[in-house]
Amino acid sequence: MMKKKTLLAVAMMLFAAASFAQEALWSGNGAIVSPEINSDNSVTFRLRAPKAARVQVTGDFLPTENRKFDNGMSYDFPGVADLTEKNGVWEFTSAPLPSELYSYSFIVDGLTTRDPSNIFLSRDVVSITNIFIIPGDPGDLYSVRDVPHGTVARRWYSSPTLGYDRRITIYTPPGYEASGKSYPVLYLLHGAGGDEEAWITLGRTAQIMDNLIAQGKAKPMLVVMPNGNATQKSAPGEDEQGLKTPANPFANRGAARPEPPYKPKSSYELAFPDIVKFVETNYRVEKKKSARAIAGLSMGGAHSLNISKEFPDLFDYVGLFSAATITFDMGDRQDNPIYQNIPQKLKTQFAKSPKLYWIAIGKTDFLYKANVDYRKLLDDNGYKYEYFENEGGHIWRNWRIYLAKFAPMLFNK
Amino acid sequence: MMKKKTLLAVAMMLFAAASFAQEALWSGNGAIVSPEINSDNSVTFRLRAPKAARVQVTGDFLPTENRKFDNGMSYDFPGVADLTEKNGVWEFTSAPLPSELYSYSFIVDGLTTRDPSNIFLSRDVVSITNIFIIPGDPGDLYSVRDVPHGTVARRWYSSPTLGYDRRITIYTPPGYEASGKSYPVLYLLHGAGGDEEAWITLGRTAQIMDNLIAQGKAKPMLVVMPNGNATQKSAPGEDEQGLKTPANPFANRGAARPEPPYKPKSSYELAFPDIVKFVETNYRVEKKKSARAIAGLSMGGAHSLNISKEFPDLFDYVGLFSAATITFDMGDRQDNPIYQNIPQKLKTQFAKSPKLYWIAIGKTDFLYKANVDYRKLLDDNGYKYEYFENEGGHIWRNWRIYLAKFAPMLFNK
Repeated sequence: MMKKKTLLAVAMMLFAAASFAQEALWSGNGAIVSPEINSDNSVTFRLRAPKAARVQVTGDFLPTENRKFDNGMSYDFPGVADLTEKNGVWEFTSAPLPSELYSYSFIVDGLTTRDPSNIFLSRDVVSITNIFIIPGDPGDLYSVRDVPHGTVARRWYSSPTLGYDRRITIYTPPGYEASGKSYPVLYLLHGAGGDEEAWITLGRTAQIMDNLIAQGKAKPMLVVMPNGNATQKSAPGEDEQGLKTPANPFANRGAARPEPPYKPKSSYELAFPDIVKFVETNYRVEKKKSARAIAGLSMGGAHSLNISKEFPDLFDYVGLFSAATITFDMGDRQDNPIYQNIPQKLKTQFAKSPKLYWIAIGKTDFLYKANVDYRKLLDDNGYKYEYFENEGGHIWRNWRIYLAKFAPMLFNK
Repeated sequence: MMKKKTLLAVAMMLFAAASFAQEALWSGNGAIVSPEINSDNSVTFRLRAPKAARVQVTGDFLPTENRKFDNGMSYDFPGVADLTEKNGVWEFTSAPLPSELYSYSFIVDGLTTRDPSNIFLSRDVVSITNIFIIPGDPGDLYSVRDVPHGTVARRWYSSPTLGYDRRITIYTPPGYEASGKSYPVLYLLHGAGGDEEAWITLGRTAQIMDNLIAQGKAKPMLVVMPNGNATQKSAPGEDEQGLKTPANPFANRGAARPEPPYKPKSSYELAFPDIVKFVETNYRVEKKKSARAIAGLSMGGAHSLNISKEFPDLFDYVGLFSAATITFDMGDRQDNPIYQNIPQKLKTQFAKSPKLYWIAIGKTDFLYKANVDYRKLLDDNGYKYEYFENEGGHIWRNWRIYLAKFAPMLFNK
């Protein structure tokens, strides 16, 4: 029989050997705790980097800098702060922070890197950052709580209209599998550059819905998160293109930027009924206009606007989050039927009195003016909508807020 | 109407603004392609780090170093190679590599960091590394191919025996939802330190099963991947403990190492029927011994050994991958009924003639000797099993191979 000491060693080896490379072990970062959320909700960041000359932290927890571009648009850039070094460990403590989900990265001698003491990461297009949550309101809404949890499934659906199968993320509410009941459905669309993972990871959709449903604030519903890029089948790495990191849209990768591998036979908007059909034949859902909602952010807001007017009998609830209503002006896209006869189609849609047409945008969003113009168009025609405006720009912080405000208004009219 | 040039700018802004921080933009890494798989299957790694004094790459694509420990056990440590610098860009090209899924990290002046040009990451306990795949055999089996895809669901099940609800990952095969048929089930268990994400991310289970099923080599089946740590409800970050990075088992975090937050009322092994019951009441599966398999790696191999003997009527197929058969010697755990009367329970199990009892291990695995001893015990009693031995140690490379060999043998006897 083995001795207890040996048993412990065996247990430790089992634990360690299960792991290819105990990163913190190699780098000597084992004893570092980062980020540490202090009792006053300030946050201390730490990094062991004895050879570094300068270590900075950048993230949306720091005051942002609003930069204007030549074309008149503006965007909030995250701030940067310097860490100070003592015995090889660099440290920075933030001001007390309002409750929120925040993102950050370290910059070590100019090289952006993750925090090796924090395994929680979030991918936004080709950017991967660490995350942390300051508890309270709204942070608790974005956190996993001790409440019943829904199921998140990644699966594939067939889109005959586009011409291929595509990946999709589907949230079913707690109790769905066993209840025997039919549920309403929110179709929730991402922005340009995003994919079918965006609302689940950056949007914290599963946590928001679990919590709102547990609090009785939202009805149990399915949330369907498709991939909104018609030339893609899936998020990077999830289809037969393999583990290819997409080109950064700002970087000149030249020949490294590939042509889209898939050539859709139609547009995403016109193909959307394929998704509705898939959901309504694969899930126990209510198949009627009053049990369908569509909402999206930025490009997904434009999708929601266009799909809901193109198919005016499908959706009784429409949400435009920081929507790219500027698509109205895209004269070069008039070959897509989606952009033809828009005023007439809106007239038809609003004549059918959708139960909720909800527009939300932040005051410094570069699409603010476009949304003012769009609301004027609706006002001029007497089309009924509801409007929510808050601080901030074109950022996930606002889109989580909009989802948390929109979901409770659904399916109760 | 906007001009085309403006439209392009708007499109670019939509794309960029959707992202909080275009990391490659900030770090100037946009034009870097890394890793680049060359035509001879060598791989070039690149990193822009003009201020760095030394840049290295470490990973399992480099020759490993087998280190022996005082207690007689050994483990394969990944190799390290130096990159060379030119105009601020560091570069290293490997030897031509055999087909495989590989992991790597950069080390910049001693700091382990991810490759900012590669968004594909894999978490192994608290270690996060980049990954890439060299095509061929077996790499193609681990890749997403243009074949029908199964569904991967993350959900929660109730374990009255342990005393709480727990998270679980479930693969359903292509066509499951619409077929109306009932399927057999493989219960697939992770090792110490792993969780319900390990087999899906590190094990590439969905890709292996999709591909084996498409090739007609494996029967369509469910694969159920529970969390095997009884004091956990879920992988880190997926329960109400929040975004807390677990302590590194090797690091002395002292007070930072928390007590397990949950106190199970029983052991994982004794509570396993809760999982079987959940699966058989929530999924369209065949509810009989000949349609149930259980397999696991390391600690999960010990779990498979013990659960299958404890409940000798449940599983007709058993797989021990690099199994921790040393649990037999754990004299300090005799308060757990699982470790009592083992010889008698094995006798009962084998008297019922399981259809397949499969043992696999690598020649340099630190559990090799323990497996020799266990096979001797089986041989001495005339218990029938099959055995597979290959090169290498206690690593995911082997566990993927074992899954790919085990799954085709299931449910056809």
